[in-house]
Amino acid sequence: MGGKLIVFEGVEGCGKTSQMQLCGQWLESLGISVILTREPGGTKLGSHLRSLLLESENTVAEVTELLLYAADRAQHVEQELKPSLAAGKYILCDRYTDSTIAYQGYGRGLNFKLIHQLNDIATAGLESDLTIWLDIDVELGLSRKRKDEAKLDRIEQETIAFHRRVQQGYAELAASNPSRIVRVDGSLSKETVHQMIQDILRVHLKGL
Amino acid sequence: MGGKLIVFEGVEGCGKTSQMQLCGQWLESLGISVILTREPGGTKLGSHLRSLLLESENTVAEVTELLLYAADRAQHVEQELKPSLAAGKYILCDRYTDSTIAYQGYGRGLNFKLIHQLNDIATAGLESDLTIWLDIDVELGLSRKRKDEAKLDRIEQETIAFHRRVQQGYAELAASNPSRIVRVDGSLSKETVHQMIQDILRVHLKGL
Repeated sequence: MGGKLIVFEGVEGCGKTSQMQLCGQWLESLGISVILTREPGGTKLGSHLRSLLLESENTVAEVTELLLYAADRAQHVEQELKPSLAAGKYILCDRYTDSTIAYQGYGRGLNFKLIHQLNDIATAGLESDLTIWLDIDVELGLSRKRKDEAKLDRIEQETIAFHRRVQQGYAELAASNPSRIVRVDGSLSKETVHQMIQDILRVHLKGL
Repeated sequence: MGGKLIVFEGVEGCGKTSQMQLCGQWLESLGISVILTREPGGTKLGSHLRSLLLESENTVAEVTELLLYAADRAQHVEQELKPSLAAGKYILCDRYTDSTIAYQGYGRGLNFKLIHQLNDIATAGLESDLTIWLDIDVELGLSRKRKDEAKLDRIEQETIAFHRRVQQGYAELAASNPSRIVRVDGSLSKETVHQMIQDILRVHLKGL
């Protein structure tokens, strides 16, 4: 049985982390070998890049930011995703190419052609088998996040208007990629969301 | 009077650092405002990237390496080169786009189209006004470097064959860009090389 790349996407506080953990436990209970990873920061080199990208004190030019996300992704694809897929594992990945389109494209208004070009370079064509978009009201998500964490990173500190544009980006991405991206209402209870994700995986990934 | 971007290129041990210092002192003696900088590592963020790129213990995938050099360059162009040029300064820069073509393209055999694409993204079209190529025998250069420094970085540790391909890359770049790249024999004495660089700058950059 081949490996699968399952990506979790959404605005801050949408519940990706807890849902990935629940989903991973469920898949393991079915005897599937699972790895949980994330972007940025899924590799040793990537964890350094994640700090550079998210620590508030660094001034990062817009094109630099895009190139650093792409570098993190290229390293992740090469060192982690491809070998794990080849080994038949199910990868649950916190953010992937759609995050760059939503945050840097819709959020910051950077050039979409450039973003697609860099996504192509970084992934060498590797797309997710399935992307779960946890859709949650931006203000609800941010309030969850702000309650949990003493210090907000550079992205979390952006304005509400920025996060609304990101949200709009996810909505448009989901509309144009209906077979790859599935929306789940992230405001429902943790258990309900997990149940919905189980159902979606059963439908989309044969053999579960 | 507008600023100028003057780049110093060449294989390891070719004498870029000392020649940049001499050239900077000479330009300052003419009343010109000069800055010395380098790639990778010409900005605060870039100095972190330089460590990631050159520290031997990091495994860096080939495409990741290209993207990190591009990120370093994009930040350098935006934060340092463009503002300094706008302020009318003469910039002496240790390595720029030709290094990526020579080292990653000719040296490592990475895709030239990809390298040019990333150079274009990173520089937003900013070319050097003049590039001085300090041409030196690869083995002579490396022996100078190995005498000076206890620890060699990841690039310096490459094979002689790698450095010969880099050298060949510079030769081809100089041949195809005769008005921008000027070759200087780096095996001559420090004083002679400096004198030749003065002459070249007088010819190429009017008003000196």
